Order: sequence, then C-alpha cells, then structure tokens
Amino acid sequence: MMKDSLMTRRTIRQYSGRDVEPELLNQLLAASARTQTMGNLQLYSVVVTRSAEQKAALAPAHFNQPMVQQAPVVLTICADFRRTTTWAQCRQAHPGYDNFLSFLNAATDALLFTQTFCNLAEGAGLGLCFLGTTIYQPQAIIDVLQLPQLVFPVATLTVGWPAEEPPLSDRLPVESFVHSETYHDPTPEDIDRFYAEKEALEVNREFVRINNKETLAQIFTDIRYTRKDNEALSQTLLDALRRQGFLE
Amino acid sequence: MMKDSLMTRRTIRQYSGRDVEPELLNQLLAASARTQTMGNLQLYSVVVTRSAEQKAALAPAHFNQPMVQQAPVVLTICADFRRTTTWAQCRQAHPGYDNFLSFLNAATDALLFTQTFCNLAEGAGLGLCFLGTTIYQPQAIIDVLQLPQLVFPVATLTVGWPAEEPPLSDRLPVESFVHSETYHDPTPEDIDRFYAEKEALEVNREFVRINNKETLAQIFTDIRYTRKDNEALSQTLLDALRRQGFLE
Repeated sequence: MMKDSLMTRRTIRQYSGRDVEPELLNQLLAASARTQTMGNLQLYSVVVTRSAEQKAALAPAHFNQPMVQQAPVVLTICADFRRTTTWAQCRQAHPGYDNFLSFLNAATDALLFTQTFCNLAEGAGLGLCFLGTTIYQPQAIIDVLQLPQLVFPVATLTVGWPAEEPPLSDRLPVESFVHSETYHDPTPEDIDRFYAEKEALEVNREFVRINNKETLAQIFTDIRYTRKDNEALSQTLLDALRRQGFLE
Repeated sequence: MMKDSLMTRRTIRQYSGRDVEPELLNQLLAASARTQTMGNLQLYSVVVTRSAEQKAALAPAHFNQPMVQQAPVVLTICADFRRTTTWAQCRQAHPGYDNFLSFLNAATDALLFTQTFCNLAEGAGLGLCFLGTTIYQPQAIIDVLQLPQLVFPVATLTVGWPAEEPPLSDRLPVESFVHSETYHDPTPEDIDRFYAEKEALEVNREFVRINNKETLAQIFTDIRYTRKDNEALSQTLLDALRRQGFLE
C-alpha cells in the first residue's frame, strides 16, 4: 500500500550492495508516466546514470554528497521541450517553446513525474534521496549529461535499497500550510504555535548549540540557505536557463 | 493499492453532487505533507476554495473552464517563502528568500507535494483535474486569494467524486523519455517511432481534420500553445514573479 509506505517514508542516503534491476527501474518509470502532463506532451526526460565515471563526474555539481557515487543509480530528471520541438520541426509545424513560460510548464511536468516515481519506488521498498542541489550548479550537470538546448535539469534522485532506517522527520501542523478561501498571514503567535514542535526537538536544539546560534531559524538564514548564496545562485540559474534557450 | 489506481487514472472534469468531506481532505493534505522538502521547511501552502463566490472569482483566471465552478473543492497550491520568512523575522534571523532561486526551490516543494496529493486522492477514489492555466494569469489568482509577497500560485486542482469515466489517454514509449548515461538527441526516425501511436489515434486524426491542419504537431504549435501566446504569457509570468518579490 502506497499510503503506508508514505507515512513511514524517510530520506535514505545509505544503500546496500544490491543493484536496482533495470527491469524494475523501467517498470517504475513507465508507471510514473501515467502522471498527467500539459497537453499530454510529457515535457520531461530522465537520464539514468549507472557508470562509476559518470557518477564521479556528477558528484561535484552536488557538492560531493557521498550518495551520488555510492547509490547504484542516479536519476536526473529534466524539463524537456527538445523532443516536442524536434517533433514539430519534423511535421511542418513552427514551435515556440524557447521562453520562460515553456520552461515552467516543462519543469512542472518533470517535477510531478518525479514525485509519482518517488511514491512508487518507495512503495516498492527502494530508498531515495532527492538532491535539491540540481538547480544550484545546473551548467555542470548540463555538460556532464550533454543536455542540448531546451533541456534543463530540475531534480536528481539517488536510488538504491536502504541500508539504514533514520528516524521519521517532523512536520508542521496542517493549519500552518492550509488556508480557507483566502491566505491568512501568520501572526507572531501563529508562528510560535506552528514552529514549537520543530524548535523543541533535541536534535535541533543541539544544532543551535554547536553552531553558536541563538535560534533554529538562524541555522537556515546564516548557514544553510544564506542571502549571499541565494542571490549568487539565482544569477547562475538564470544564466543557465538563458544558455539552454529558455530566456531570450 | 496506489499502483492500480495510477495505472487506470484519468483526468476527471465532471463530478457527482457528493461533497468532499473536510475531514477526508485534511487527512489527504496531512499525508501529502510527508513528501520531502528543502531543508524540511515545507515551502508551500494550499488555499482551499469551497465558496461559490470565490470559485466564480477564480474562474476567469482559468479561462472559465467549467470544472472550477462545478467541482466541490478547488485547491490552489502555492510556492510559499512567506511563512518561513516571517518565522525568521520573529527569531532574530535575517531571511534572504526574495530571489529567483528561492522561487524555484519553493515551487519544487509545492509541485512535489501536489503530486503526492494527486496520487493519494486518486487512490481514495476522488477525481482530479490539474489546471495548467494557474501560471498563465497568476496575478488574477493572487488578487482573488489575497496572496502576500513571497507566495505564488503554481498549481490548481479541481477535486470531486467522479461522474464520468473517460478513456485512458495514450503515452509515449519509455525509450522516448529515458536516456542512458547521456542525452540522446532524437533523430527524425526516432521521432517517427516515438509519435506513431499518438498520431495514429482516431481522436487525434479527427482533431487534425476538423481544424484543417496537416499534422497533429500543428494543433499544438498553431492552436493550443502558440509562440505568440507563450511569449506574451512569459512576460506576464515574470511581471507577477517580480511583484510577489521573487525577482528584483
């Protein structure tokens, strides 16, 4: 049951030596493609990395997180208007998908497909780690995977059979992210209530202590996701989008 | 079983009179929140529309597609860095999430969450329609739902109990979207093979005939998703991102 596997899911970063059989992987990718897409055009592609050389080449783009080289399979899921554009060019049609709307349409298709894959793969007992680093240094990934114009990496998954069972991570209360009819801006009292559980967790309190911070929020703003990094990476991301043909 | 519901899923645009019980909806939203997110920050929010007035106000933003007013529930899923930013401001931290990278990080969280919701809701027997129009006229949605700075709509779902069973839609062969080690640019022969089934479908041949087109691809490039529309909507989208604070 997918619901059960979802409720006990955790990110898996350590994998057993067992391979992910190509037949199983293809079945999961084929089933994931049942996900709805824009005009049923399936504006995505998946590059499967199994070779040690290619994993080693991808690793720096992901800040050398060890999962990239240790997982049996790395999947890079891309927003892809290339195939549809080539189809149009082969059929006396004049495509116009070299623009930002088309990027976001294709990225949407790619991310919805990715999450169905996550749910199915975890339901089948596989362990996954979603690498958010994909959009931090996209040009390095584009070069290694030889992605042509109108193809852009939006998600990476490391995939294998779990060799760890980390604790379940916390979640914010539903009232913090569900709004009725209109958006209700959180008051300071709302914030206290929404974040109380997260801030009270011993692992998070320890994080604050060892980093000499006053609050958990400072861990995110000062260390993990800083303004300086975000602004520099925004520029890198926009430059890569331009080079791949999605911004004129 | 989620796998079975996925393999027989279809987009549902007609709903029975039965309501979607708030308790069921909240259970599904809570379970969807098990999906992984950036730094476990859950950079999304969901606005639930049940009132007839709000549905009528949203309808024009979705080109008055009838599902918006006929479905018992409309969900607008938003990329949301607002709550996290307010949290930081309440905790002596200095957030820096008013930039493009942060938008794409939050949009990623929101879309992954959305797709888990789709998988779970369809598994529970609900019928859904994903409205790609959300990013075509985002400002209208922002106004109706009163979305503040750093909140941006990225997906809309109409949700109800199915009152139709349309045929399963076609899919491209797996080899068209799965690449081994590096991206393989499709040749004209590949394109013929990948699109043969789609082009041969009687419903698509009829589409080409009644629109006086030569090829199915022209239906997409000349009618459904034209260069002119894509370029104008790209500008609208970038303007709205700027107004919501995600592009300086």
